[in-house]
Amino acid sequence: MRFNLLPTDTAFYDLFGKSANHLVDGARLLAGLLDPGSDHAEVAARVREVEHRCDEVTHETIRRLNSTFITPFDREDIYRLAGGLDDVMDDMEAAADYVHLYAIADLPPGAAEQIDLLGKAADLTAAAMPRLRDMRGLDEYWIEVNRLENLGDGIYRKSLATLFSGAYDALTVMRLRDVVEQLEAALDSFEKVANIVEQIAVKES
Amino acid sequence: MRFNLLPTDTAFYDLFGKSANHLVDGARLLAGLLDPGSDHAEVAARVREVEHRCDEVTHETIRRLNSTFITPFDREDIYRLAGGLDDVMDDMEAAADYVHLYAIADLPPGAAEQIDLLGKAADLTAAAMPRLRDMRGLDEYWIEVNRLENLGDGIYRKSLATLFSGAYDALTVMRLRDVVEQLEAALDSFEKVANIVEQIAVKES
Amino acid sequence: MRFNLLPTDTAFYDLFGKSANHLVDGARLLAGLLDPGSDHAEVAARVREVEHRCDEVTHETIRRLNSTFITPFDREDIYRLAGGLDDVMDDMEAAADYVHLYAIADLPPGAAEQIDLLGKAADLTAAAMPRLRDMRGLDEYWIEVNRLENLGDGIYRKSLATLFSGAYDALTVMRLRDVVEQLEAALDSFEKVANIVEQIAVKES
Repeated sequence: MRFNLLPTDTAFYDLFGKSANHLVDGARLLAGLLDPGSDHAEVAARVREVEHRCDEVTHETIRRLNSTFITPFDREDIYRLAGGLDDVMDDMEAAADYVHLYAIADLPPGAAEQIDLLGKAADLTAAAMPRLRDMRGLDEYWIEVNRLENLGDGIYRKSLATLFSGAYDALTVMRLRDVVEQLEAALDSFEKVANIVEQIAVKES
Repeated sequence: MRFNLLPTDTAFYDLFGKSANHLVDGARLLAGLLDPGSDHAEVAARVREVEHRCDEVTHETIRRLNSTFITPFDREDIYRLAGGLDDVMDDMEAAADYVHLYAIADLPPGAAEQIDLLGKAADLTAAAMPRLRDMRGLDEYWIEVNRLENLGDGIYRKSLATLFSGAYDALTVMRLRDVVEQLEAALDSFEKVANIVEQIAVKES
Repeated sequence: MRFNLLPTDTAFYDLFGKSANHLVDGARLLAGLLDPGSDHAEVAARVREVEHRCDEVTHETIRRLNSTFITPFDREDIYRLAGGLDDVMDDMEAAADYVHLYAIADLPPGAAEQIDLLGKAADLTAAAMPRLRDMRGLDEYWIEVNRLENLGDGIYRKSLATLFSGAYDALTVMRLRDVVEQLEAALDSFEKVANIVEQIAVKES
């Protein structure tokens, strides 16, 4: 039997899991923007609430990092992963906020597919966080998130072509475009999280 | 008495302080854009001048890094902090440049508040740099800069809502928006500097 | 004679060289967009093809990183350099894609100069990669790429001033602007690669 005299602090895995679960909640709320007759002000307020809770988890992670001697992996990687998860939440919140701020009645073309991809990426990320404990099965996670991001990129570019096709006036193009871009940014941020996880796995391997 | 046989090069603290002081100057010049009848071409030229001086400090920091064996903290962190301070200056210069390039007579709604926040963030950053020597009192600095950035985010989003409210034509929206976004980017860059300082403190703690 | 009992894997240098050569190809294809009567759909398709090949090299680099015990420099720096080269390719591909997606007949003002700078930055980068072996002569490379990026910044800002001068309608400004910005982003990404190389050299010195 091998004693681990200096056990690492495993609370980090739970904190990353909590952050990722907030992303799942955020993506689900964004899907509510697609319901006909949904109250965009209320959806934006609820996404903001989730964003605040996610922020608190991030700060708790940083505080714990400051007071923990032995961490499960590089301190800096914990910091980056916590920040990366937080960035996704910020992007999702900004998207909901634009829809509300600009008083957008109909979401831009492609937004439904983008939000669907965000939901899938959030689920994958939430499923991957506990697997950081043994670093197993993470390859499929980041490969799949990269695939989703590629799909999202195609949807994003097609949306832009539609927006600029002449069917919309310039101010409408600008407003809808901000939403499309923020949703694309959220998907990119999911990919960045996957890349951070990949780098952690590379180092620990 | 403990001899420090291999003293670290403390010139880095002075260099970071110099960079941050240039940011204070830059923020003060931006405030000049708000004066009725101010010469925007001249303000932009003076901000550019400060930006060049800031660049020189950054390069001196890198050169010193190349020729110094023992550094006060991780070489890479010195590099990142130098780059982060330089990014703030670049953002402030770009904002002044847009006002001049686009021949904007009246600054966009919210710009006065944004510039005020930049001045505060610059002062805090300049006051924090010397404290890197003993890593004391840095918590308040980065918490406060994060708070300012949150405030700025609210102002930024409200500006956008005003710009897209229908009171401005599309080209004016685009022009004013670039200024608002660049000021927001500068505030974000101040937050990134604070985050780099936080990470350095985390590592050294 | 000194035996190197644990030889580092030198295949990484070849992989970085391959990536950089794809950037040279990409920049050359972009130049084709300037030819009167060039088929923009076909150019965009060919840039995308090069982008796929560049992607494959990046993945091969990561795979090799996962299976190599001793690397010529920090694992994380290899990861960042591979990612940085890949980012340039993504930016160039996005620029060509915008020209095609938006059905832009005449490229925006300044695009010819921007594409010329991209070609020069690509050539310099391709010439620098083999020099990572002995870390010699890299100073000139990153100083020159930084100089090109500064030139590009001036061209970019002048383009914007022209676009917003009143000679173009709002939708045209938006479309042309995306191209100008993506070309500028590609040049920025070249500078980031140069900065990563500089940091590697700093660490190894």
